[in-house]
Amino acid sequence: MIKPVGSDELQPRFVYDVAEHDKLSKEAESLPSVVISSQAAGNAVMMGGGYFNPLKGFMNVADAMGAAEKMTLTDGSFFPVPVMCLLDNADAIGDAKRIALRDPNVDGNPVIAIMDVEAIEQVSDDQMKIMTEKVYRTTDPEHVGVAAFNSQGQTAVSGPIQVLNFSYFQTEFPDTFRTAVEIRNEISEHGWKKVVAFQTRNPMHLAHEELCHMAMERLGCDGLVIHMLLGKLKKGDIPAPVRDAAIRKMVEVYFPPNSAMVTGYGFDMLYAGPREAVLHAYFRQNMGATHFIIGRDHAGVGDYYGAFDAQTIFEDEVPKGALEIEMFMADHTAWSKKLNKVVMMREVDDHEKDDFVLLSGTKVREMLGNGEAPPKEFSRPEVAKILIDYYQSL
Amino acid sequence: MIKPVGSDELQPRFVYDVAEHDKLSKEAESLPSVVISSQAAGNAVMMGGGYFNPLKGFMNVADAMGAAEKMTLTDGSFFPVPVMCLLDNADAIGDAKRIALRDPNVDGNPVIAIMDVEAIEQVSDDQMKIMTEKVYRTTDPEHVGVAAFNSQGQTAVSGPIQVLNFSYFQTEFPDTFRTAVEIRNEISEHGWKKVVAFQTRNPMHLAHEELCHMAMERLGCDGLVIHMLLGKLKKGDIPAPVRDAAIRKMVEVYFPPNSAMVTGYGFDMLYAGPREAVLHAYFRQNMGATHFIIGRDHAGVGDYYGAFDAQTIFEDEVPKGALEIEMFMADHTAWSKKLNKVVMMREVDDHEKDDFVLLSGTKVREMLGNGEAPPKEFSRPEVAKILIDYYQSL
Repeated sequence: MIKPVGSDELQPRFVYDVAEHDKLSKEAESLPSVVISSQAAGNAVMMGGGYFNPLKGFMNVADAMGAAEKMTLTDGSFFPVPVMCLLDNADAIGDAKRIALRDPNVDGNPVIAIMDVEAIEQVSDDQMKIMTEKVYRTTDPEHVGVAAFNSQGQTAVSGPIQVLNFSYFQTEFPDTFRTAVEIRNEISEHGWKKVVAFQTRNPMHLAHEELCHMAMERLGCDGLVIHMLLGKLKKGDIPAPVRDAAIRKMVEVYFPPNSAMVTGYGFDMLYAGPREAVLHAYFRQNMGATHFIIGRDHAGVGDYYGAFDAQTIFEDEVPKGALEIEMFMADHTAWSKKLNKVVMMREVDDHEKDDFVLLSGTKVREMLGNGEAPPKEFSRPEVAKILIDYYQSL
Repeated sequence: MIKPVGSDELQPRFVYDVAEHDKLSKEAESLPSVVISSQAAGNAVMMGGGYFNPLKGFMNVADAMGAAEKMTLTDGSFFPVPVMCLLDNADAIGDAKRIALRDPNVDGNPVIAIMDVEAIEQVSDDQMKIMTEKVYRTTDPEHVGVAAFNSQGQTAVSGPIQVLNFSYFQTEFPDTFRTAVEIRNEISEHGWKKVVAFQTRNPMHLAHEELCHMAMERLGCDGLVIHMLLGKLKKGDIPAPVRDAAIRKMVEVYFPPNSAMVTGYGFDMLYAGPREAVLHAYFRQNMGATHFIIGRDHAGVGDYYGAFDAQTIFEDEVPKGALEIEMFMADHTAWSKKLNKVVMMREVDDHEKDDFVLLSGTKVREMLGNGEAPPKEFSRPEVAKILIDYYQSL
């Protein structure tokens, strides 16, 4: 199986030993504690599950700047984005060397991790600006990721962490949340040798399904891991159980046995486009995928990024040899009326827009809400049925 | 795929809808609440994950008596043991119709489920005695299961529940705990048609491995679900991460790709022998297994049960047609020095005890502690290595 990034074996930061876990949970209650940002909590969950291997904890400013500026930490190792625990101030910490990090996303702010404090540093305005500019390619405060990053405060607490739980992700999505450890175990159980991962946070229509089939066929993969971003529901989002059911039905009906699995991970999306694409690839290698599908405007938002920036960055900026996982560079896919099949749009130069079956999200939701299945060139009937049942229940 | 017991689709009692889950969690804080017994909490976890389908909640006394006396509830449906929420008293409930059930096994006693109270009844001494006698085949207070059952109090609160979490099982065993829903999903992803389940709470040595191979071969199964009982560590137990690693290594090396998966469930063992074997079979059908291995003295303790009572009960007491899952009735397996392979002991009439390679648990632990691998007729070297590393670390 493909090795994790930076080590031979995955070294998740979750405390698996139950006795040790109990001991730390008790210790945590007597430690000075801080409620961390939602982003930091997401990072803790990712480190807990082994996705950010071999990272042991939150970066100090030098490492964070290195990650932002050249995806390289001070020890020369590769990491594509800063992973920081930024606070408004460190008053509650004082000179404590060991602190409890509390989860902002769960009622009562339970301890999500214990940190051995190695440094408490002030991040200058300049440094915040450089990191923002490098990671997001913009400092526009209207950019949702930029706004979130800069709302955290400028006191960086850094040091290794021991993770005690997976926040609300595991408890609220018990059938779907997976650690990188689990996905590696399951890939091994499936016996897959070449595994492509697909990122989604929505139900998959025919174009997405065919993109996965295309990637598997062209790459010669024997396994597909559909890996869903789990998180708080935003207005207009389809609830997780409905999305999961739609995706599982698609897999059941349209993928051969032992070729696909449906899983999820918990993280606060950065909307950092190209840089986030590199992070996405990074943690897919850690979960055991050999290939990762990068689509048009992957992890982008608005029009901050060029359509294929999230692809060219792998050639232009990722240090050679930093990642073993390979990218499947994709474009949007859609049904071609001329060819009567789903095609990758950039591969059919002779097509005009009208040659494709394209429906806006708004149009699709409207149809489903009216109990109307989108055309078969757009949606599988089994998937449409599940979504119609949901929209009609609203 | 095999249908669950009692319904076409699994109806787990966990609240999967995140918005509803949030709402109920908030509501729970304002409800009258009781800390339930560890056994009741285990039952809530099982109902949450769909394992006790189609049970909707805790049984009233009539249903519990029916389950104990003839494995049949008042509505005629089948259930092999009482599933009760027994309290010392119902003072904290008053005449509330909706209450929060708190988890005794997690610090702070968080709410594990909400119950719609349908009845609060006193269980008479006679009824306790009958249930004990029927379920455990003894009323000996020295029997660990009998003692636990009778230590809960005699006030039965009954009614349907909505489950909010999986107690400490999911949080402490994040890579192994599975709901019945998840196992069904994974069986479907594997594409298995005939699936045999194997119950264990220990690392598996060669005899256990070969028992699974034997069952798969004789039954023509394409899938094996190793299903571990998860729980608090008892003195002398091997910690979960070590056990898991040993079992996963065995699967990796000695089972073909796409033929086995390693999973766990959370429950307080009853040690009820035959009756528990029926319960074990019941919830394996719910998780999608078509076959279940019942060994010698399955789920027994001490010498309360005959060696094959847990097998004959399926013929003698389980109502015809109650279960669709089929049993693979096994005996102990061991290496035969005469035949140079692992055999099922009752199938080799001509063997004396000395013809087998048999080692006591104490002897095996002693060898491992000395850094000595048990003979290859007993342990796979890869498995022994993991266990030696653990014992030497003590």
